[in-house]
Amino acid sequence: MRKLSINKAFMLLEPGPVVLVTTADKGKNNIMTISWHMVMDFTPQFALLTGAWNYSYKALVKTKECVIAIPTVDISRTVVKVGTCSGSDTDKFKKFGLTPLKAKLVKAPLIKECYANIECRVTDHIKKHNIFVLDAVCAWIDNGRKERRTIHAKGDGTFVVDGHTINYRKLMLPKLPAGV
Amino acid sequence: MRKLSINKAFMLLEPGPVVLVTTADKGKNNIMTISWHMVMDFTPQFALLTGAWNYSYKALVKTKECVIAIPTVDISRTVVKVGTCSGSDTDKFKKFGLTPLKAKLVKAPLIKECYANIECRVTDHIKKHNIFVLDAVCAWIDNGRKERRTIHAKGDGTFVVDGHTINYRKLMLPKLPAGV
Repeated sequence: MRKLSINKAFMLLEPGPVVLVTTADKGKNNIMTISWHMVMDFTPQFALLTGAWNYSYKALVKTKECVIAIPTVDISRTVVKVGTCSGSDTDKFKKFGLTPLKAKLVKAPLIKECYANIECRVTDHIKKHNIFVLDAVCAWIDNGRKERRTIHAKGDGTFVVDGHTINYRKLMLPKLPAGV
Repeated sequence: MRKLSINKAFMLLEPGPVVLVTTADKGKNNIMTISWHMVMDFTPQFALLTGAWNYSYKALVKTKECVIAIPTVDISRTVVKVGTCSGSDTDKFKKFGLTPLKAKLVKAPLIKECYANIECRVTDHIKKHNIFVLDAVCAWIDNGRKERRTIHAKGDGTFVVDGHTINYRKLMLPKLPAGV
C-alpha cells in the first residue's frame, strides 16, 4: 500500500461503491459492509449512515475512528458475507481470511486485500439521523493491483460491477477541485 | 413512465449513480447534477448534500420539494453539461432539450429522458452540514427503455459506466428488505 494524496481520497467514494468499514475497540477488530455513505467535501469529508442495529456502531461512537476500505469485484463474495454476519460472535478478519494492517493515524486496521484504504476520524454524530461525519486523515492505495473494478449494491442482493470509463475532463475542467 | 413501487425506489440510489435533481420555484424549473447523495432508509429516505453555491439550493429551501431523476449513459454528456452551467442564467430544460413532465405529488418536474424519477419532499435541513433529508413520496420508471446503465462520477471528470451484474440474492436473503 502506498500513500495516496489526501485530496484525491474523495475519488474513492464519489462513485458510490460498496465499502468495508473497520473499527477497533480495545484491540478487537471488526468489519462492516456498507453502501450508505456519501462525499460531503473534497477536503475530504464523508457521511456514513449506521445505527445501533450494527455491532460496529458502539466502536464508532466510542473510539471516533474507522477505516473505509474499498474492495474490488474479486472479493465481492467475501464482502457480501462480511455483511451477513455480526462482529458480536464472529472474528470477521479470521473467518474470511482478511489481513489487518496497522494504520498510521487511527487504531482501526487497514484491510490488505482491499484496493484502497482511508483512515477516518469521526468529527460529528448526527444522532437524530444516524449520520456519522468523518474527516479522512490518511489514504492508501495498492497501485500494483490489476483488478480495480468496484461493486455497487442494487439493494436486492444483486451488485453492478464497474464497466468502462468515459472521459469528460475537458468539459468539467472549470469545476474540478485542485490536484485531481 | 410507469409507477414504481415506493419500497423499491431506494434501489435507484443505492448503487451511487450521478443523478439530476429538479426543482420548481414560482413555475421556473431548474436542474442540477449531483453525486453527493446517499440512502438513509428503505422507506425510502435519502440525504442530498448541497449548499448556497448551487442555484437550486434556494428553491430547495423554499419549496421543500424536488425530483431525483436517474439518467443513463446515453445522455451522460448532457448530464455533465447540466452540471457545468447555472440556472441563474440558463433554462437548462430548453438549452439541453430535456422534457419536463408533470409530477404527481410535487411541483418539481420529472425528466422524460431519464430512466427513472423519484418525487421527494424535504423533511429536514441540517444546515451545519448542508444536508437535506428527503422522503421519497412517488417513483416512476420507464420500463420500455433498453439503455439502463447509469454512470458514476470518479471526481476527476471521468465517469464509470455500469458493467455486468452479480447475483448474491441467496447469500443476502435474510438481510433484504420486504418487497424487493
